Amino acid sequence: MKKLAIGIDIGGINTAFGLVDEQGELYAESVISTRKYPYLEDYPTYVNDLCQALRTMIEGISFEFELVGIGIGAPNANIYSGLIEQPANLWKFRDEEINRDEKRRFYPLAEDISKQFGGVKVLITNDANAATIGEMVYGNAKGMKDFIMITLGTGLGSGFVANGEIIYGHDGFAGEFGHVIVERGGRVCGCGRKGCLETYVSATGIKRTAFELMATMNDRSKLREIPFAEFDAAMISAAAEEGDPIAQECFRFTGEMLGRALADAVTVTSPEAIFLFGGLAKAGKLLFEPTQQYMEENMLFAYKNKVKLLPSGIQGKNAAILGASALIWQQA
Amino acid sequence: MKKLAIGIDIGGINTAFGLVDEQGELYAESVISTRKYPYLEDYPTYVNDLCQALRTMIEGISFEFELVGIGIGAPNANIYSGLIEQPANLWKFRDEEINRDEKRRFYPLAEDISKQFGGVKVLITNDANAATIGEMVYGNAKGMKDFIMITLGTGLGSGFVANGEIIYGHDGFAGEFGHVIVERGGRVCGCGRKGCLETYVSATGIKRTAFELMATMNDRSKLREIPFAEFDAAMISAAAEEGDPIAQECFRFTGEMLGRALADAVTVTSPEAIFLFGGLAKAGKLLFEPTQQYMEENMLFAYKNKVKLLPSGIQGKNAAILGASALIWQQA
Repeated sequence: MKKLAIGIDIGGINTAFGLVDEQGELYAESVISTRKYPYLEDYPTYVNDLCQALRTMIEGISFEFELVGIGIGAPNANIYSGLIEQPANLWKFRDEEINRDEKRRFYPLAEDISKQFGGVKVLITNDANAATIGEMVYGNAKGMKDFIMITLGTGLGSGFVANGEIIYGHDGFAGEFGHVIVERGGRVCGCGRKGCLETYVSATGIKRTAFELMATMNDRSKLREIPFAEFDAAMISAAAEEGDPIAQECFRFTGEMLGRALADAVTVTSPEAIFLFGGLAKAGKLLFEPTQQYMEENMLFAYKNKVKLLPSGIQGKNAAILGASALIWQQA
Repeated sequence: MKKLAIGIDIGGINTAFGLVDEQGELYAESVISTRKYPYLEDYPTYVNDLCQALRTMIEGISFEFELVGIGIGAPNANIYSGLIEQPANLWKFRDEEINRDEKRRFYPLAEDISKQFGGVKVLITNDANAATIGEMVYGNAKGMKDFIMITLGTGLGSGFVANGEIIYGHDGFAGEFGHVIVERGGRVCGCGRKGCLETYVSATGIKRTAFELMATMNDRSKLREIPFAEFDAAMISAAAEEGDPIAQECFRFTGEMLGRALADAVTVTSPEAIFLFGGLAKAGKLLFEPTQQYMEENMLFAYKNKVKLLPSGIQGKNAAILGASALIWQQA
């Protein structure tokens, strides 16, 4: 009988999911809102509605298959405990909540979903780790034992693979490379500290760079016509393609910050390759060229010109679902 | 029959070795000079003399035993290839050498020694990795699956363990944490770059700090009476113990640089513990207190107060021999 796994990608706005086979082919997909369930007390309803939507998706499949497991990528998801631990943007306290004990915000998602599907295996991890496993199972990292995955979205996520295994660390939360400090006393980060890599290298980071450069450079630029509130990273890519000097400097600077940080990361895990994934990576050589250049310039001699900088092989709108389902295939 | 392994620690000056059982008990030890064999063409004689010394040691044991393997810690030793690859301070070209092709300086030490002992298993890795495995097999990291070892000598070495395995990386040379850049444009490093961690945090690094502080501070200090050429890190420890303000500031600053760097390393591998090993670590709370303080101050919220900073459990004069022999026990 055909074997399929479910992959679920939980974002702050939507929860997308699909049925995937071991080769990464998608047989069905659907989506529910995450935003509709914003508070702590909405969590049980969210779980029920999600499971109902999964059953509907399963019933839509016209052939018989074995459901081998459910893999989930979600913020603050811990693969060891199966819990979503104190997520910043999910199932929050209401403003009027008095008992704000953060210990109440550990959500046993893996167990809660497994129960509704006859005890099927459910594995959860954060979205960057899910993408990393997706790269290993379906993407360009097939057969690699040591690589680094960098996911560029609103923030910067990462997954480190060594000896063929993803590094989850002692507590399940390793791979927060976006929070390596690259500029002492630098840009304020959402984590409460300053100078984290993701304040420079991410969709938000490059936008901040654009505004800094509009202040420090004198060149004419179309970017000067767009207010901060309406600005996004794709506008910088488009302007850079047209030769806009500020937009081009944005990418050079972003590549410099990322390249430096990667040179340091290489000294720790000495990977075969580094993959760039996500929105900003779609800018192609605008980002890859300066990143490669500054990575090599800052690299310890022993590693120079040995580490490949590559695009992800699972780019595309279903990458997050594929990545989540890969959690199951990796252990199947 | 009793099983024993040989551990060999190859340094630039001496090669120390011993016979060790699985519990880390040393049954015999000896030493030959490394410095006596400085040039490329001395390598075969070095191997023969070392093997002769090993046989003499073995013959001195009064009971029958099985030799299960030989583990070696040496600079630039590659566990995958068994080669010592282009070591900076071993078996160099003579000044008058014309054919300075660095490809000639790959020394097949594992194979050459194995041949002389009937094909026994020989494993080699760098000294920091050997110490890391020693910590796992005999020391304070027993049972830990995720930890970081920092070895503080003339330079700064490191070993990263994740999922119970040491991270060798794609090329066998992972874990060069001493060459993470912590100060852009900072102190000149032996590697040819600037601002590497080991230029601040190592016996050499703290000595450089002392001289910088003698320039920037006005306080009286006994350290001002010692010329650079005669200065060593132990003098700073001794002075700090006596309340010398410059010596105390040396340790605070060293702890700050190390603590910051460790906070970043934690975001990558999220270890259970970090061990400090080697000369500078013997300064005890002079080094541990500021390191812990700055590590926690710079730590991402998710990891705060979770990672233990601990002294090595294999400190002592035979640590390097034990660490090298542990290579064998780990795989036995």
